[in-house]
Amino acid sequence: MGRRLVVIGGDAGGMAAAAQARRVDPLLDIVALEKGRWTSYSACGIPYLIGGEVASLDDLVARTPEQLREQGIDVRIRHEAMAVDLEAGKVEVRDHKLGRTFSLGFDRIHLGTGARPFRPDLPGIDESFVGGVQTLDDAQQLLSHLTHPPPWAPGGVKKVVVVGAGYIGLEMAEAFIRRGLAVTLITATPEVMPTLDPDMGKGVTRALRKLGVTVRCGESVTGFEAGAVHTSVGVTPADLVVLGIGVAPNATLADQAGLLLGARGSIVVDRRQRTSHEAVWAAGDCCESTHLVSGQKVHVALGTVANKQGRVAGTNLGGGYATFAGVLGTAITKVCGLEVARTGLTESEAVVAGFEPVAGVVDSTTIAGYMPDAAPLRVKVVAERGTGRLLGAQIVGDGPGAGKRIDVVATALTANMDAGDVADLDLAYAPPFGPLWDPVAIGARRAAAAANAT
Amino acid sequence: MGRRLVVIGGDAGGMAAAAQARRVDPLLDIVALEKGRWTSYSACGIPYLIGGEVASLDDLVARTPEQLREQGIDVRIRHEAMAVDLEAGKVEVRDHKLGRTFSLGFDRIHLGTGARPFRPDLPGIDESFVGGVQTLDDAQQLLSHLTHPPPWAPGGVKKVVVVGAGYIGLEMAEAFIRRGLAVTLITATPEVMPTLDPDMGKGVTRALRKLGVTVRCGESVTGFEAGAVHTSVGVTPADLVVLGIGVAPNATLADQAGLLLGARGSIVVDRRQRTSHEAVWAAGDCCESTHLVSGQKVHVALGTVANKQGRVAGTNLGGGYATFAGVLGTAITKVCGLEVARTGLTESEAVVAGFEPVAGVVDSTTIAGYMPDAAPLRVKVVAERGTGRLLGAQIVGDGPGAGKRIDVVATALTANMDAGDVADLDLAYAPPFGPLWDPVAIGARRAAAAANAT
Repeated sequence: MGRRLVVIGGDAGGMAAAAQARRVDPLLDIVALEKGRWTSYSACGIPYLIGGEVASLDDLVARTPEQLREQGIDVRIRHEAMAVDLEAGKVEVRDHKLGRTFSLGFDRIHLGTGARPFRPDLPGIDESFVGGVQTLDDAQQLLSHLTHPPPWAPGGVKKVVVVGAGYIGLEMAEAFIRRGLAVTLITATPEVMPTLDPDMGKGVTRALRKLGVTVRCGESVTGFEAGAVHTSVGVTPADLVVLGIGVAPNATLADQAGLLLGARGSIVVDRRQRTSHEAVWAAGDCCESTHLVSGQKVHVALGTVANKQGRVAGTNLGGGYATFAGVLGTAITKVCGLEVARTGLTESEAVVAGFEPVAGVVDSTTIAGYMPDAAPLRVKVVAERGTGRLLGAQIVGDGPGAGKRIDVVATALTANMDAGDVADLDLAYAPPFGPLWDPVAIGARRAAAAANAT
Repeated sequence: MGRRLVVIGGDAGGMAAAAQARRVDPLLDIVALEKGRWTSYSACGIPYLIGGEVASLDDLVARTPEQLREQGIDVRIRHEAMAVDLEAGKVEVRDHKLGRTFSLGFDRIHLGTGARPFRPDLPGIDESFVGGVQTLDDAQQLLSHLTHPPPWAPGGVKKVVVVGAGYIGLEMAEAFIRRGLAVTLITATPEVMPTLDPDMGKGVTRALRKLGVTVRCGESVTGFEAGAVHTSVGVTPADLVVLGIGVAPNATLADQAGLLLGARGSIVVDRRQRTSHEAVWAAGDCCESTHLVSGQKVHVALGTVANKQGRVAGTNLGGGYATFAGVLGTAITKVCGLEVARTGLTESEAVVAGFEPVAGVVDSTTIAGYMPDAAPLRVKVVAERGTGRLLGAQIVGDGPGAGKRIDVVATALTANMDAGDVADLDLAYAPPFGPLWDPVAIGARRAAAAANAT
């Protein structure tokens, strides 16, 4: 038998690494442990499953355990890694199906343990009607709550409270509206979408209200009891509560094994995704990344990042050489027709990172203004005062083609462009695709002018 | 009276310069001559006017002569510059309305004389039923042909032949289909859309046929006569013919004035848009550009380029300092729902420019594959063998969000990225916007692999 790689975690950060290690080294012995029932799935698709656009849980699975086994990855579902003994080179594994515990030797280990929804220490937080949206097991539990209503809602779940107004919170709010439920969204922030500057978040708050969601900003949740959510303002009835207040890295196993933890308790890794122990690698929501604009270590829990990091780790684990470029915090979502996207630093993030930011804001249209389907689009480009260095951008636009424009800025940030360079780009134009001057280019030009003026 | 700038041409290349010169120097005396009736209009919008999506010709006008005059630009429509005497510092102007000719002095002159549809020297090419789509006057003539049919089609125009299968040809074919006419598209090229490599153009040919257009590739037009088009294959009845076989720069005035001409007979300009004579500047479809990938001088006739060059010329004419970055030949169009885009060099263009290209092709979907509206999307990324340098990309995709992805490649090309860098970009992802790995990134990864492998 050759060398053995044990992969812990059956979703993106783990399976992208396993699959890539297999490609690079066809002889490596790869065992993968997943405590749940599913592997390689799109957690980002869960809101569309709950909303009914995606018909079944299985549709979200990219590769089943069987398919992974056919690729030569020995996947064991409902197997949980309980402890890692780095000195002995062994993992203690709990087989939840057979109810037994055993020890598994390894030469190298890869951690793709992911993240868990942040659960603040509030009374009633562990009630079964208060759920997260992180794994397919969470999704199944949510669906089961909807079909088997709690005792205080014998007629079926009608009132849902979503706590938190980030991407997941918003997508879940829309999903429940699609199911015909009454949705209240409660957030402590002044506007929804706290990853945008408030002047941009305002437009999203408006769109959510138009969609029929009762949005309550600036309100803190203080606890839960059967059928109700307590907040700083009062009591709100709830047949079901979904938490969308962010995630925390699942780094307990790493911590217990003595690995170094960094940003927000995530696992420290180097450029090649190796942890502080030379036999242990990590990728995805459990580990930290370097932000390409601020240069700071950050914890970004996104499927794209997890897959890229997993691929890098897998290449290295297979004996190749790869490095992970870093993150920009690029993200996008759609609320009804409204497209919302961001990349790099917001004005407030730029201040925290030590920059003095200026912004260029433009109100334009998604396509040429004279075309019948032209819809409003706002772009905000953030640059550094004096130097004109591009720092980030945010987009809120009402229609197809608005949000993905953010990718131009993500590319320009990676290339260390100035805002003025973005204004000059030879971007694609035809009337059904945008105004002659792309709104991103105009925003960049204004940001460059603001940077020079002050 | 201060210094006088005479601008020749009332559309993008001319008016962008005039408006910007006015902003930079509020005291400059600016006279603008336009031989037609309209100023500052979107010629790119003409197909949507003919197709009925845009209601009136006036909707395509960004700034009327009156609005330009309010900005302090002395616009004279139906005034044609007949000759430029650089030694005497005078333009001979023909006032078509009053039928008189006069002489106008200038300190500096700016040429925005645009381009004219290429009209090959074929029998019958000057018949009135054979039209171009370059100016609003052309558009008005086309609309008038449709409402006042020729003698051989007393029941109204029913059969249209479009000659040429570039952007304009395709957009006009769709416009006539929207009007319920029978459309035949004839092109000498093996597939439609010759600015793509044929393997990508094939998908567009298919889509056009599906739309109901009779597409005839590999067929040369040999002449025209009342009611018919003659080709290498035979005779095709036609109540109306539209030429979409490209444009030639309108550089006659520049040539007669002794200015240097370059690529395809377009006016030679430097980085600041100054021609070979220090008092004369030029911008837009009449002049040449530098291609950012090949480094070669090219003639690209596009509204975006004309506006950018005009702005640069205007800044310099007003006493400021600006340079034009160059072009990538980025272009996009929509045929029915099919989005087609390109930037940089195709494989064949790369060969001509002296590169040895490799390509990465990926068949993917516009949004996550499990979402109900997922549609096919093909991306081809071209890179240089050995170095992996990014050279260009082409996209053909069936639905919203497909084509504008090209802007990522346009940005990456401007930043001199390698194909491998594009594969690593932190692009925006959520299920309604794309697969987890963006097709552009996968295409780039494949191109990088091909570049290294060979």
